Amino acid sequence: MTTLDEDLEDAAAASGGPVHPGLRRARAWLSRAVEPGTVDLWRYVDDHGPVEAVRRLRDGRAPDTVRSLIGARAEQDGTLADLQRAERCAARLVIPEDDEWPHLPLHALTLAVAAEPDERRHQTERTKALVPPLALWLRGPGRLDELVDRSVAVVGSRASTAYGEHVAAELGHQLGERGWTVVSGGAYGIDAAAHRGALAAEAPTVAVLSCGVDRPYPAAHGALFARIAETGLLVSEWPPGSAPLRHRFLVRNRLIAALTRGTVVVEAAARSGAQATARRARDLGRSLLVVPGPVTSAMSVGCHELLREGELGAQLVASAAHVIQAVGSFGDDLAEPASKPATARDGLSDLAARVLDACPVRSGVSPERLAAVAGCDVLEVLRVLPALELADLVQWTGTGWRLAPPPKVRAGGGSGAAP
Amino acid sequence: MTTLDEDLEDAAAASGGPVHPGLRRARAWLSRAVEPGTVDLWRYVDDHGPVEAVRRLRDGRAPDTVRSLIGARAEQDGTLADLQRAERCAARLVIPEDDEWPHLPLHALTLAVAAEPDERRHQTERTKALVPPLALWLRGPGRLDELVDRSVAVVGSRASTAYGEHVAAELGHQLGERGWTVVSGGAYGIDAAAHRGALAAEAPTVAVLSCGVDRPYPAAHGALFARIAETGLLVSEWPPGSAPLRHRFLVRNRLIAALTRGTVVVEAAARSGAQATARRARDLGRSLLVVPGPVTSAMSVGCHELLREGELGAQLVASAAHVIQAVGSFGDDLAEPASKPATARDGLSDLAARVLDACPVRSGVSPERLAAVAGCDVLEVLRVLPALELADLVQWTGTGWRLAPPPKVRAGGGSGAAP
Repeated sequence: MTTLDEDLEDAAAASGGPVHPGLRRARAWLSRAVEPGTVDLWRYVDDHGPVEAVRRLRDGRAPDTVRSLIGARAEQDGTLADLQRAERCAARLVIPEDDEWPHLPLHALTLAVAAEPDERRHQTERTKALVPPLALWLRGPGRLDELVDRSVAVVGSRASTAYGEHVAAELGHQLGERGWTVVSGGAYGIDAAAHRGALAAEAPTVAVLSCGVDRPYPAAHGALFARIAETGLLVSEWPPGSAPLRHRFLVRNRLIAALTRGTVVVEAAARSGAQATARRARDLGRSLLVVPGPVTSAMSVGCHELLREGELGAQLVASAAHVIQAVGSFGDDLAEPASKPATARDGLSDLAARVLDACPVRSGVSPERLAAVAGCDVLEVLRVLPALELADLVQWTGTGWRLAPPPKVRAGGGSGAAP
Repeated sequence: MTTLDEDLEDAAAASGGPVHPGLRRARAWLSRAVEPGTVDLWRYVDDHGPVEAVRRLRDGRAPDTVRSLIGARAEQDGTLADLQRAERCAARLVIPEDDEWPHLPLHALTLAVAAEPDERRHQTERTKALVPPLALWLRGPGRLDELVDRSVAVVGSRASTAYGEHVAAELGHQLGERGWTVVSGGAYGIDAAAHRGALAAEAPTVAVLSCGVDRPYPAAHGALFARIAETGLLVSEWPPGSAPLRHRFLVRNRLIAALTRGTVVVEAAARSGAQATARRARDLGRSLLVVPGPVTSAMSVGCHELLREGELGAQLVASAAHVIQAVGSFGDDLAEPASKPATARDGLSDLAARVLDACPVRSGVSPERLAAVAGCDVLEVLRVLPALELADLVQWTGTGWRLAPPPKVRAGGGSGAAP
């Protein structure tokens, strides 16, 4: 068994090829040594590379301003224990040097951290700073970059009402059904309802935690987290065993916003964290989508506040179709846009486009359900389905209608293929 | 008893002074002879004056294009019967030549009709055209111009839910309590709930009908209309006895929009008349305010549609305070703005301004109610009340807090007063 410092030395000497174990170990060390959201530490790692940064932090060559962020933890090394603990619960550490790293969504954080001033006292405080993660602990079979490529955050109050939970579950279900990944925080209330809705649609869902992926919080959600980890992902910036400290929730929230194309707020009390959620989404260039509710419900007051504040650019959404309309585009939702005659989709009537948008990716559904989702009546659905089927846009499964699978990529079309 | 034609001749010869009975009779004749909303007829009356217009229409001098709008009714004269019938139910005919005529609110219709093209086939169809009324039949003690000066329309579906009715009644009550007149159409559902809310606050309310003021429709609202007519007003463009024909509802709706500073839509089904209501409010330069609801409620779908269509400029409102914020301005809400030191109000904190906005005009209310309306907690209310009282902005009635009455106008301040 090599020591951390030997591994780092090896990694520093290595060039090219697959990710060196020392590199992964350097990132594991950073994930325990420093709380995420620290601007100066992230910059130091960015400047020197993770291996060199860790070596300098450990042998005292790093400047005091950076070293002070780590303190006594500089001498400790729990990396092997952390990596082994992760392995025991089928978790893994994914780092920016891996193919799976979601570079594109996280780019917004890279831009944001670049805009932070140099002097620490002028920087955004750590719980609010938009700083990219240094590494992510993942548990579950999902591939992170693929899962978040078409994803939406569904968040809201822990003290939710039956109405809010119903709406979150229904959104989660319909988004899942239509091939969108629901990302949330695994908390009580809206978060859990959204995850459960997605699971009910047999869609993978992603819970971004503020504790170790082997130690889900709240404990009462143990079964829920286990189900999420069967098909989707539990994600955390903190190494296995980490406790869900209060300030970590705030730091975690930036990841939920950054990983997704938009954030849907389902219920929020007056002057709750909803304003912060909204500003973060806006600062990251993400859509902020808000579900209204009864004006008599205290749990919708925060949502209505968001919708009344024009400056935030919040959009009212009342259905999964509205969400997809906001975060996706019709072209995006079909792979290989060039492989079908442009006219097949471009020529669709509003009604046909709505019905098509209502079709799930996986299991087929009845025309009645399509009508409910598309917001039209069943006769209208029955009128447009034949045309959609003729255009190879939808498919009858024997029990219901779903989107037709994208056609196979034509062979030999890529450049650099073997002759 | 003079005939109509004699009366008209007299009126034509009269100059200055109070409104000549022949002039009122000319307008009464027009109100029966022609359906409101007719661009060419309104222009003809505007060009020649009502007395001369009626004489020409009756003796055949009017151009055929205008005369054809009236047909055989040109020879008939039911004016005396109409005026007597009105008198029997304590109704009266108010005309643009009366002081009570609401010139300012209706000016938006004068501007709109001026924008209509000359050729009839290019004009907006009658049920949608924005044409000023030629005369208004009123029943009740209220003075129309004063009642609509600070008024809001509260409208919505006839097939309302308990939620919508609760919200409409609460809005009607709070608006009434704070000196705003609720204007609606007297229909089942939202309209009735809004009127009833205002009545419960002992505030006058205005029902604009599409039938005679002595023949309220729906008949089941007889008692409601009688209560409205005790303190507020029933208003109609049609003479007593007129039936509530379907097309008249549409024509009537422009008046509800024009008379008020803004329209609040409480519940509306998908693809209902809500879009038309919205466009009319916008075309007349009025605020369009929309109450959201559960996304699971079919009766809120139309409201959410309005809020999603950015182009309409609809604003979400969740309380009477939001409505007043949109249609009133703080200065407007206190008479004689110059009579108090500007600093008393200008220096108010956001919280104090909200609490002040929450105070009713008439009966005093508890700090708990102020807190509920202002959206803050009771301790905050109790903290700002002393300062508001010291500034003479609020008053303790012995049982509750209300707005302090505006100070008396200083004597001798007017020009042209007797020496």
